[in-house]
Amino acid sequence: MTVDMEIICVGNELLIGKILNTNAHWLGKQATNLGVNVKRITVVQDIVDETADVIREALRRKPQFIIITGGLGPTFDDKTLESIATALGRKLDVNQKALAMVKTKYEEYARKRQLPTTIELTPPRVKMATLPEETEPVNNPVGGAPGVRVDLEGTTLFALPGVPKEMEAIFAETIAPLLKQAVGDRVFCEKNMFLDDIMESNLAPLIVKVMSDNKGVYIKSHPRGTENKSHIEIHLTTAAKAEENPMEMLEKAARELAILVKENGGKTS
Amino acid sequence: MTVDMEIICVGNELLIGKILNTNAHWLGKQATNLGVNVKRITVVQDIVDETADVIREALRRKPQFIIITGGLGPTFDDKTLESIATALGRKLDVNQKALAMVKTKYEEYARKRQLPTTIELTPPRVKMATLPEETEPVNNPVGGAPGVRVDLEGTTLFALPGVPKEMEAIFAETIAPLLKQAVGDRVFCEKNMFLDDIMESNLAPLIVKVMSDNKGVYIKSHPRGTENKSHIEIHLTTAAKAEENPMEMLEKAARELAILVKENGGKTS
Repeated sequence: MTVDMEIICVGNELLIGKILNTNAHWLGKQATNLGVNVKRITVVQDIVDETADVIREALRRKPQFIIITGGLGPTFDDKTLESIATALGRKLDVNQKALAMVKTKYEEYARKRQLPTTIELTPPRVKMATLPEETEPVNNPVGGAPGVRVDLEGTTLFALPGVPKEMEAIFAETIAPLLKQAVGDRVFCEKNMFLDDIMESNLAPLIVKVMSDNKGVYIKSHPRGTENKSHIEIHLTTAAKAEENPMEMLEKAARELAILVKENGGKTS
Repeated sequence: MTVDMEIICVGNELLIGKILNTNAHWLGKQATNLGVNVKRITVVQDIVDETADVIREALRRKPQFIIITGGLGPTFDDKTLESIATALGRKLDVNQKALAMVKTKYEEYARKRQLPTTIELTPPRVKMATLPEETEPVNNPVGGAPGVRVDLEGTTLFALPGVPKEMEAIFAETIAPLLKQAVGDRVFCEKNMFLDDIMESNLAPLIVKVMSDNKGVYIKSHPRGTENKSHIEIHLTTAAKAEENPMEMLEKAARELAILVKENGGKTS
């Protein structure tokens, strides 16, 4: 039984090519390394109806986890909480636990800057604590906006801020332990090798053979060369129980592929 | 009337955090600069049914353009053509025009490597020319796999290889001129500014005011500082006709925001 996850990233800046989506990359890598099967990444504009649609569609596919990044901050274009409320048909309401988190965070900021610590809860600050009903605020160890957790039938949904170090800190503190528990004793392993002097089109049937002889090992080829000189990266992956020796499974498949490649005029490098 | 586009990226390597999705970033930037409204990016696994679902869902939203990247190569895990066929309910068939393109390309390779130019059309090579019925191969100026164009009711769909320089070359040669034509005389403009000594939560209402006084200008704030020192990047964008002076629209909005920020104890830097 795989543990499936979808990632939803909210923000025009990701769609217009202003910012590279390093958050999805980081989350995909972390979750995969924990043995989770990352099924889909969707990037959507800061528009409530659009984001709500994306959330609803993801929920319909019933992954065990959905992680949303971005749109939790204090500004008008931070619309993720409203989008979750719309998707779930729930009201937005000031969450007292979240409000206390926001207040504590701004008091800390003020103390560090040696400013008066009587913090005014301005509308933008209250906004960060205005959550859809029946959701849980999640501690943000490094920033002002709390994360949000929603437990639904079959799916646990988290919303995290888009600021990378805040997203990463909440993931490490709250989400990673949960994923680990859900995955159990399966681990993800990977191995790279490089091939020269063989074209991808000639390599294709060799990969098919090795994969069919090594069940559970997934092999993908990535051309890295130029038009005139082929140089191919081979990426072998598996997710298996520790007692199945997943690393040895990969080594064996890599050895077999290397032999076939040599027989076909290529070489490993 | 905006010209809407969706981008679909096929490939496990993007979901497991092996590769940063620079293709979506590059395409989003190019299309935005041409005045196109990039609505959504979806990243999906190399699984025919999953990718076909994503294509069907995107078609249902009726964007004028859909660009798919990845999965056009010769190996077993290149499944985009099969996915398009499944999504559209069309058969796959060897396309003679595409086959001639593939053959020419491999003859060129052979010539450059001073090998015999009698090219064997192996199954993996024929695979790259096996297109869904009623689709058009698109010239790939730098690689072996042709792109594919499908004209549907209200939507033109392109499938491009995932290798960045091939994707970029096909986009520049075939897609950019088409987008330019669809967009007409609208241009996209952007401007950045940086603010210090003001917290994002205090800045929020100021941005709302400037946006409401400057219709058509979109302003987004990105916190770039540390916990103790706020430093905020402001990104102003607009898509407008050249005669509306879009750059002057942005300059005016930026000046007004700078004044409000100053009145509230912050400064531009």
